[in-house]
Amino acid sequence: MKKEDCIFCKLANGEIPTRSIYEDEEFRVILDAAPATRGHALILPKDHADNLYQLPEETAGKAFILAKKLTVSMTEKLGCQGFNILQNNGEVAGQTVLHFHLHLIPRYTDDGQSISLKPQQYSDEVLDEIRNQLAE
Amino acid sequence: MKKEDCIFCKLANGEIPTRSIYEDEEFRVILDAAPATRGHALILPKDHADNLYQLPEETAGKAFILAKKLTVSMTEKLGCQGFNILQNNGEVAGQTVLHFHLHLIPRYTDDGQSISLKPQQYSDEVLDEIRNQLAE
Repeated sequence: MKKEDCIFCKLANGEIPTRSIYEDEEFRVILDAAPATRGHALILPKDHADNLYQLPEETAGKAFILAKKLTVSMTEKLGCQGFNILQNNGEVAGQTVLHFHLHLIPRYTDDGQSISLKPQQYSDEVLDEIRNQLAE
Repeated sequence: MKKEDCIFCKLANGEIPTRSIYEDEEFRVILDAAPATRGHALILPKDHADNLYQLPEETAGKAFILAKKLTVSMTEKLGCQGFNILQNNGEVAGQTVLHFHLHLIPRYTDDGQSISLKPQQYSDEVLDEIRNQLAE
């Protein structure tokens, strides 16, 4: 199912031309329009889901298998030295388009990018509390 | 298969105690020892793979389905406002332990974290060249 007025639905389904590097029945992979590095690409499911919360499990599994395959093949073709896979959900997490997408980000020595998270300090008591809250 | 002297093999297989929030036959999910936010966790496969390049496809698919399930359940339990999924391969990409892991990062308004990538400018000619290099 496509969603009206969703730009990524239109891109994924070929209604708007884009630089596409892979396509199958369920996914299209396109170059990011604001690439962080050479080859930065996005895996887009053709069926609309706002985010990972809405994405069917089966599609989630296939998306990451595709990410694995493309990480291997893109690394060979680009000669990059590493790779980030990033998936953002919600504005607070940096999601800018409300259609699930997986960022494939080839990394190069001195590419000037840094995905840095600042480690926080929690007491053992707080960590135990979080653990107990989350344990299934 | 476990790898000798791999700390994440030991954590995933329960040889070193850790704050574990989920376990099944193939995976253990633990709280990150240097958490970026409240509830920051890592999905660890019990069998060793250095990174996504080495991870079997089937395991990759299952890992991301698990990420989807945990994103839903952790969001409910923590009341976070968003979620990042991050997977780093290679030192240049910020991978600090050479055992595949998926970061599950709950995001909160004003959590002080930012995963920001600086967009680069490429000419249409360069973008076409990259597209042609990567197209399958």
